[in-house]
Amino acid sequence: MGGDGREPGRRSGRRPGKADTRTAILDAARARFAEAGFDKTSIRSVAADAGVDPALVHHYFGTKQQLFAAVVEFPADPEATLSTVAAAPVDELGETIVRTVVAVWDSPAGPGVVAMARSMIAGDPNLARTFLLEVVLERVRTRIATAEDDGHARVALVGAQMAGLLIARKVISLEPLASMPLAEVVAAVGPTIQRYLTGDIGATA
Amino acid sequence: MGGDGREPGRRSGRRPGKADTRTAILDAARARFAEAGFDKTSIRSVAADAGVDPALVHHYFGTKQQLFAAVVEFPADPEATLSTVAAAPVDELGETIVRTVVAVWDSPAGPGVVAMARSMIAGDPNLARTFLLEVVLERVRTRIATAEDDGHARVALVGAQMAGLLIARKVISLEPLASMPLAEVVAAVGPTIQRYLTGDIGATA
Repeated sequence: MGGDGREPGRRSGRRPGKADTRTAILDAARARFAEAGFDKTSIRSVAADAGVDPALVHHYFGTKQQLFAAVVEFPADPEATLSTVAAAPVDELGETIVRTVVAVWDSPAGPGVVAMARSMIAGDPNLARTFLLEVVLERVRTRIATAEDDGHARVALVGAQMAGLLIARKVISLEPLASMPLAEVVAAVGPTIQRYLTGDIGATA
Repeated sequence: MGGDGREPGRRSGRRPGKADTRTAILDAARARFAEAGFDKTSIRSVAADAGVDPALVHHYFGTKQQLFAAVVEFPADPEATLSTVAAAPVDELGETIVRTVVAVWDSPAGPGVVAMARSMIAGDPNLARTFLLEVVLERVRTRIATAEDDGHARVALVGAQMAGLLIARKVISLEPLASMPLAEVVAAVGPTIQRYLTGDIGATA
């Protein structure tokens, strides 16, 4: 929170205060996101907590979603995955979600995702919940919500299945699921996700 | 590992060495189970590592499965759940597994299960894997295995779904799944488990 960090454009070369300012912003954002969730946290409130100008938060971290990704140390660009899912027809959401998400886990970014998930599960459940519900699943939910069914139970079921798949395939290496080819994972789990999103799930639907 | 603990029947009343002996056996068992898995760990090897007679391990902990349950601090009697599942017809395994397992999570034993799961995920993945594969899922697998399909992929998928359901419902409290009535959870997730066990799961089947 040093003065150098608050005026990042004033000097060229290394800015000694920059790391401290970034850390202060991240600490403030982590506390806000965990306490208030993603939707109710504003860049303005994070900036106030960190003692910096809101423009500086945008300057360092970009959008609120990118700030959140930095807080949870998300090792990939969530936007790439989310826009692939957003482009899929509703009746192909299940296989598309499994294919694109598991491909990230299997990519070089995978170990980072696993580390993030483990620390979320072992650490603050509020961050894990707001990440799943408000960042990842909300954009799917709005696509499958109807007048009779707001889709909240459906996307929570999707989150449960995907969280378990991540744990089984990547955290505890449950074979043969851990080394199952992606196409087979899609064939096995895709229909589960599709049913949770658009199929008959019983009394809740 | 004191002499008192090795001879638990010799004195009535409090036995000062008993706690140490129990701890030594548990430490030895934890290391063996984590390294070699459930199947390849013998009571004899645990006893040797702990420097006690095998009969003492049985005396304190009962069967190997009960010793394992003590190692992972399993807060319920896994035998009760496993025998309910074992008594269910094959075509009702899905709903039976979800109903009986989630009922344990929702019972007073639930917080202990959650604590165990969190420490397994955050801690030693070998213990989590051996618990799921060799203790919990193996008895289901033998019921659905055929000449063409050994069922290993199927029970791993079941493990993944149930692990994710536990995390969503109990660890991060993903609503509305966290407070969904048991009957609705069974209606939503039971068919997933049934399909993983006996349905068409694509190339792996």
